[in-house]
Amino acid sequence: MDGLKEECGIFGIYSVDRGLDKTKCSYASYYALMALQHRGQEACGIAVNMDRNLSYHKSLGLVDDTFNEEILDRLVGDMAIGHVRYSADKTPSSQNAQPLVLNYIKGSLAISHNGNIINADLLRKEYERTGAIYQTTSDTEIIAYTIARERINSKSIEEAVELSMHKLKGAYSLVIMSPQKIIAARDPWGLKPLCIGTRGNDIVFASESCAFDAIGAKFLRDVEPGEVVVAYCGKMSSLHYTGKSSHNLCIFEYIYFARPDSMIENQFVYESRKIAGRILAKESFVNGDIVIGVPDSGIPAAIGFSEESNIPYAEGFLKNRYIARTFIKSTQGQREKAVRLKLNPLKEYVRGKRVIMIDDSIVRGTTCKHIVNLLREAGAEEVHVKISSPPFINPCFYGTDIPSKKDLVANSYTIDETRELIKADSLAYLSLDNLEKIAPNVKKSFCKACFNGEYPIL
Amino acid sequence: MDGLKEECGIFGIYSVDRGLDKTKCSYASYYALMALQHRGQEACGIAVNMDRNLSYHKSLGLVDDTFNEEILDRLVGDMAIGHVRYSADKTPSSQNAQPLVLNYIKGSLAISHNGNIINADLLRKEYERTGAIYQTTSDTEIIAYTIARERINSKSIEEAVELSMHKLKGAYSLVIMSPQKIIAARDPWGLKPLCIGTRGNDIVFASESCAFDAIGAKFLRDVEPGEVVVAYCGKMSSLHYTGKSSHNLCIFEYIYFARPDSMIENQFVYESRKIAGRILAKESFVNGDIVIGVPDSGIPAAIGFSEESNIPYAEGFLKNRYIARTFIKSTQGQREKAVRLKLNPLKEYVRGKRVIMIDDSIVRGTTCKHIVNLLREAGAEEVHVKISSPPFINPCFYGTDIPSKKDLVANSYTIDETRELIKADSLAYLSLDNLEKIAPNVKKSFCKACFNGEYPIL
Amino acid sequence: MDGLKEECGIFGIYSVDRGLDKTKCSYASYYALMALQHRGQEACGIAVNMDRNLSYHKSLGLVDDTFNEEILDRLVGDMAIGHVRYSADKTPSSQNAQPLVLNYIKGSLAISHNGNIINADLLRKEYERTGAIYQTTSDTEIIAYTIARERINSKSIEEAVELSMHKLKGAYSLVIMSPQKIIAARDPWGLKPLCIGTRGNDIVFASESCAFDAIGAKFLRDVEPGEVVVAYCGKMSSLHYTGKSSHNLCIFEYIYFARPDSMIENQFVYESRKIAGRILAKESFVNGDIVIGVPDSGIPAAIGFSEESNIPYAEGFLKNRYIARTFIKSTQGQREKAVRLKLNPLKEYVRGKRVIMIDDSIVRGTTCKHIVNLLREAGAEEVHVKISSPPFINPCFYGTDIPSKKDLVANSYTIDETRELIKADSLAYLSLDNLEKIAPNVKKSFCKACFNGEYPIL
Amino acid sequence: MDGLKEECGIFGIYSVDRGLDKTKCSYASYYALMALQHRGQEACGIAVNMDRNLSYHKSLGLVDDTFNEEILDRLVGDMAIGHVRYSADKTPSSQNAQPLVLNYIKGSLAISHNGNIINADLLRKEYERTGAIYQTTSDTEIIAYTIARERINSKSIEEAVELSMHKLKGAYSLVIMSPQKIIAARDPWGLKPLCIGTRGNDIVFASESCAFDAIGAKFLRDVEPGEVVVAYCGKMSSLHYTGKSSHNLCIFEYIYFARPDSMIENQFVYESRKIAGRILAKESFVNGDIVIGVPDSGIPAAIGFSEESNIPYAEGFLKNRYIARTFIKSTQGQREKAVRLKLNPLKEYVRGKRVIMIDDSIVRGTTCKHIVNLLREAGAEEVHVKISSPPFINPCFYGTDIPSKKDLVANSYTIDETRELIKADSLAYLSLDNLEKIAPNVKKSFCKACFNGEYPIL
Repeated sequence: MDGLKEECGIFGIYSVDRGLDKTKCSYASYYALMALQHRGQEACGIAVNMDRNLSYHKSLGLVDDTFNEEILDRLVGDMAIGHVRYSADKTPSSQNAQPLVLNYIKGSLAISHNGNIINADLLRKEYERTGAIYQTTSDTEIIAYTIARERINSKSIEEAVELSMHKLKGAYSLVIMSPQKIIAARDPWGLKPLCIGTRGNDIVFASESCAFDAIGAKFLRDVEPGEVVVAYCGKMSSLHYTGKSSHNLCIFEYIYFARPDSMIENQFVYESRKIAGRILAKESFVNGDIVIGVPDSGIPAAIGFSEESNIPYAEGFLKNRYIARTFIKSTQGQREKAVRLKLNPLKEYVRGKRVIMIDDSIVRGTTCKHIVNLLREAGAEEVHVKISSPPFINPCFYGTDIPSKKDLVANSYTIDETRELIKADSLAYLSLDNLEKIAPNVKKSFCKACFNGEYPIL
Repeated sequence: MDGLKEECGIFGIYSVDRGLDKTKCSYASYYALMALQHRGQEACGIAVNMDRNLSYHKSLGLVDDTFNEEILDRLVGDMAIGHVRYSADKTPSSQNAQPLVLNYIKGSLAISHNGNIINADLLRKEYERTGAIYQTTSDTEIIAYTIARERINSKSIEEAVELSMHKLKGAYSLVIMSPQKIIAARDPWGLKPLCIGTRGNDIVFASESCAFDAIGAKFLRDVEPGEVVVAYCGKMSSLHYTGKSSHNLCIFEYIYFARPDSMIENQFVYESRKIAGRILAKESFVNGDIVIGVPDSGIPAAIGFSEESNIPYAEGFLKNRYIARTFIKSTQGQREKAVRLKLNPLKEYVRGKRVIMIDDSIVRGTTCKHIVNLLREAGAEEVHVKISSPPFINPCFYGTDIPSKKDLVANSYTIDETRELIKADSLAYLSLDNLEKIAPNVKKSFCKACFNGEYPIL
Repeated sequence: MDGLKEECGIFGIYSVDRGLDKTKCSYASYYALMALQHRGQEACGIAVNMDRNLSYHKSLGLVDDTFNEEILDRLVGDMAIGHVRYSADKTPSSQNAQPLVLNYIKGSLAISHNGNIINADLLRKEYERTGAIYQTTSDTEIIAYTIARERINSKSIEEAVELSMHKLKGAYSLVIMSPQKIIAARDPWGLKPLCIGTRGNDIVFASESCAFDAIGAKFLRDVEPGEVVVAYCGKMSSLHYTGKSSHNLCIFEYIYFARPDSMIENQFVYESRKIAGRILAKESFVNGDIVIGVPDSGIPAAIGFSEESNIPYAEGFLKNRYIARTFIKSTQGQREKAVRLKLNPLKEYVRGKRVIMIDDSIVRGTTCKHIVNLLREAGAEEVHVKISSPPFINPCFYGTDIPSKKDLVANSYTIDETRELIKADSLAYLSLDNLEKIAPNVKKSFCKACFNGEYPIL
Repeated sequence: MDGLKEECGIFGIYSVDRGLDKTKCSYASYYALMALQHRGQEACGIAVNMDRNLSYHKSLGLVDDTFNEEILDRLVGDMAIGHVRYSADKTPSSQNAQPLVLNYIKGSLAISHNGNIINADLLRKEYERTGAIYQTTSDTEIIAYTIARERINSKSIEEAVELSMHKLKGAYSLVIMSPQKIIAARDPWGLKPLCIGTRGNDIVFASESCAFDAIGAKFLRDVEPGEVVVAYCGKMSSLHYTGKSSHNLCIFEYIYFARPDSMIENQFVYESRKIAGRILAKESFVNGDIVIGVPDSGIPAAIGFSEESNIPYAEGFLKNRYIARTFIKSTQGQREKAVRLKLNPLKEYVRGKRVIMIDDSIVRGTTCKHIVNLLREAGAEEVHVKISSPPFINPCFYGTDIPSKKDLVANSYTIDETRELIKADSLAYLSLDNLEKIAPNVKKSFCKACFNGEYPIL
């Protein structure tokens, strides 16, 4: 059984002065998960802790379809953690929904996890040899076993989490709820984002700062690579991984994953996308009548391109905002129809124009081809495609759902062949050299393995 | 029982050469209703007709939640009509979902209706006196009775529809499916939009042209006020209301209702909104650092304002696209939280700026107040509010859900008082004088009753 | 469109002294419908009336699946009517669920109907000619139209119901709720049962008295053929059909339809079934080791046969009580499996025995054949089949779902051929001559048309 | 967290010659679980195995509500196991639904379990100390861990199961599906039933033989206490617990749990109940006019009593067969109403009679009191209550949901006080001395701990 790749959103709240509002934590989790929904639409869940009693609700489906007032009112507690799950798996299974809630030597535990453990199979086999049984197919269960084992000879849950870091290789941001504490931790390579906020005296953790805005909390700082943050007895403290830590944040968070209103490692995501557009305008200027962006992440890049190039920005597409869960997405033959339903070009602006169209990436090339075709049908005279990231050439082993090498168009075709494939008049990618410039505030290195093959964990 | 006010979306398809694809019409209806979803989210339905046999599926809920492949595959037919329903009613009831499907003297009939019949109560009482019974609370049943009665002494269904126009006072666009025909009709005052398209030999009708784009159909023309269009025997023909017709299209379609990628009466909606922004920039220029729009309809107006004023346009808000159905909307006390969850200001752009914010309208003033407050919290130094329509001062009797006079903020407060209420630094509306300029291609008059009190039907 | 045949259960309660318990009527209806569930499992519904405001809940499905505390608590009122629906229709449709709730000249009206109107098509056409529209395919809508039309020139709803009797030909027991009254009425031919009960000062109506037991009410009397009973202003009064009335209660109620604990026309149903067994023992005695009954209605007949014949009674089958809604029932090829799953012979009692097996009727012969086969497999040496009714040879036009003549085994085969078909050692039916003896307390005539072809309404 | 007490039903099928019918095993499981539904109504599930690939479907709810053709058609495989679950737990939780499906050192495993492990807490702690984590609250997970650990040093899954028996104390019948085998095992004390059947070359296992009848299989024999039966490579083989085994079948299976058409340890259950009635007639004869049984298990006892006493047997109650899941059961205050809805006395037979009423047991006394009261209301002159088992005085530690000592009426009241409490004219229980006589074919001892306090496992 293969560990599934996951890009997820995690959240935690430790309430110091709950007062009489017993559902404050469940509602905060609901609002936060709504804000993190873009990180995973397959499943979601919230676990709460009232006087050491854990209860939870989780299921396949969107946050808004999974929770309602009746359910949130039942989830009483002084702490809570939440999770939204993305899965590349074809048949979504409810058993993998998180938080993973379990009992172990020290009572109950709930875990929300974002990432991918690359030595999961090895650990699974090691634990099996001493009698372990697995009820899910997710790496999170391997993390749980590791922590449960390290807990036996450690003084606290946070110490067990730090000890586990010595065993777990891979990308993982964690929010853990023990009978009395909320623990937030980030892998020593710093691949996945995780940040800390406050709301009054409450301590909150989230994959992205946009979750804090949704609940009126203030962004405090990012969790450091290898840091284990503990919320306990009304206070926050930290311990650090005793091994070597480094900074390798996934740069694709800035390009695509994160919500543009989030702040990651002091870098405003929306601005990163605008910068990418500006760089593109410099690197591969082309004359045109209008610059348009493919919603949603192509839009700030298009605005940046326009600002730099002085070619007017225009909204080029109307995006149907009701299509989130349409069944037609899943039907292969209907993918073109789905694109058409999702994006309608504003014909009156496109007709007869030389259009510069910005998108965040090209994976297989089929979606891009459909979009270019939509513009042609709408009367565009020329379509110049600019991609606000370098070509994808490598798979991701840390949780991002990138297809295998052979399915990546950039591995089989030159840029010019790709241009022909998508029927664009010109095609340009952001250069690998300038890639890090999109996050000028981050004075650290990034994981760019999908673009350059340099994997930070081996 | 009062007739309910409705803003709805309607659709019809008459397939000339269906070939072997028996579900072509149901799928086309599904795609079209997805594109018209913005016109009504309470209920939806599709009725099909296969060799004079009608079948249908309708229910409360969004199009995407109501239909799936299994249901669409069951709806076989050579013709279909569809409906999405908005209702101002507090307790949505499934009995009012459309199309209304019924049997009468000439067999079966299905009706999709957008509008409001102002003499519905009179007609209801008239029919009751001869024994009529009502199983819904919608005006559509009154229309059905009127047609059924007129059909007795008329030669065809289209003639019966024309005769009904002499009885029905109010706003109504209709798509009707008889055993052999699709009929599209628009009230003699021309209040509600309805247009004709073609896809190959197929004839299609829709409230807005964006539905045609979704199914790859071409816009042909609008149905004329008082026109009854018949799709029958593979061809399209027309007859016209023998009474007086006039043009009174609801101008609010351009400002808010319609999708910006739609073309109504030769006027591209997106462009109308940009023009409104440009007019605002001329009428009530104010100095600022950035112009932002409240999504979605405020954005083109903001771009227009920016173009005219040369103040830079910026995206000011991140709109959560997963909030469509959140239960918290309905809870009065949580409305502020809902606004916060739906719209997150891009703090980094707003902070320390003089912000010019464009929205389409102010009704009660509370939402606007919450949005201004979000900008203040995000650090805006000044917030200047521009509204791309004149102040609402009158109720609508033709189907638009505008609150009663006393709830309209513009009836109780002067503009300056309203400005104070919403805590803006300045507030300006589009002038009534320049209102019609937003649709320069329409060489006809409009219904502007909600702004000026001049009601076209009395 | 053909009117559907229906065997249904109806209920009504008029509460004189509700006190503070606003849901007394909805809960009483729920309990009563649970007790009447055997009369119809396709759909059910309850309508209540609080100060002239009608509300209702109805849907496809069993009573227990349709209602819960939340729904019943919402159905507040001083009166209520309910309905359980059986339908011979292949595709159950929710639009035909009852009570039928409507508005007409005198306000709102709710109707629960059991029966079949044989001149429904004529009336439908007559009404269509004056503009009527039909939203269901049930006769109940025809009844509603008839009442609505008669109401125009009558002084009261009860007078309109009596006037309607002059137009409606067929079988119908009705419970009607007007803004202020509950009306119970029975067709002038007296085909379908309907009885009156009291609970304290409350007045209740039901198809069968077992519904009264379920709510702690007392049986008062049957509604007379052609009688219109009115519960109004805390009192009960009657008016009678001014035409000719007669007694033609469907004798199959005693044999099969009614619950054995019900009392219809002073005749205890269980006792009727025992009498049928006793008559069979006299008419067609055969030697055997044990007498067994096919559950449920064959059991009292078997006990009666045993008492008369002195052959020991035994339970011969274990009936699976969880099979009520299994999907396998509907799959033709799986019918044998369904019989096997539903009825398991007690092999230890049957093995090596000469078994006398009593069942209530043979329709197509297939089920009976499967049951005889089960007994053979279980080791029965001989299987003698006794049927507690005469052979079915005619269709029913009054609401009972009997197949067409050609599908009735008794029309195509002699008794001996049928015996061979079902592989029984002997086969005997109750004689037509002795049929009426099963209801000795009823001093009136019956409808026995399905057995003798004498139809009371022509 | 406490292990939950469970009375459940389990099933397994190993198909030797499946041919092309890939869903043969899933459908057989469905039919079998329908037949075992009486053993547990809280949850159910089926797991199948196709070429070592396990898939499953399980959920809260009845078999008939959980499965449909679409789901069964998806569950393809050559083997299957199933489970129906009863739980005394107040809030049913889906995580405890079975089969428990897991991965461990040897691949995948599915376990269906009926029983209760009394040393579960000890084992849980032992395993926790080496890092085990628990995702359910059921004993089945403890069994799974035990087997997984024993499997490490054993040659086969069956050997691991036998080794586990040395660790597991308590009642357990198991059906286990490994990648290639179906294993059936019964605890060395022989507390819970489990039997073997064949259908053609297929090998089947079930808690009760009635499941075999439902699928057309033949009963072969019971699994012995401590026996591990293996279905593998088209054949069946056995190995036995190397420790001491004994026979302690729960005698309450004959009195109440098992379906009367089942054969357990060569004893026909229906006959056991009749014998109990006969013994009661001898032990505590009382004069009466009729003998009636409380459905369902009281009925054969009543027939036995009648045969022995020559007092006529009569059906005394009509049992509502649609009440299986009514929500009103759960509402404490409505329990009397639920009894009334479930059981309606046949007044005409009871009125004026001296009634002898047989029921299987008295737990708290409240239900019995309600039933006696129903008979009084129906006009019974005398009500004599006979109980076909001795008084309950002890809790069960092996999986039967018997309340704590203080709630058992027989611990707080003498028989005469109990009689007064339930308002009966006389009350008698089956004597402990004669109890074993109800299963004359079983030449072994029983567990009667709930009656006599002699617990077979300590």
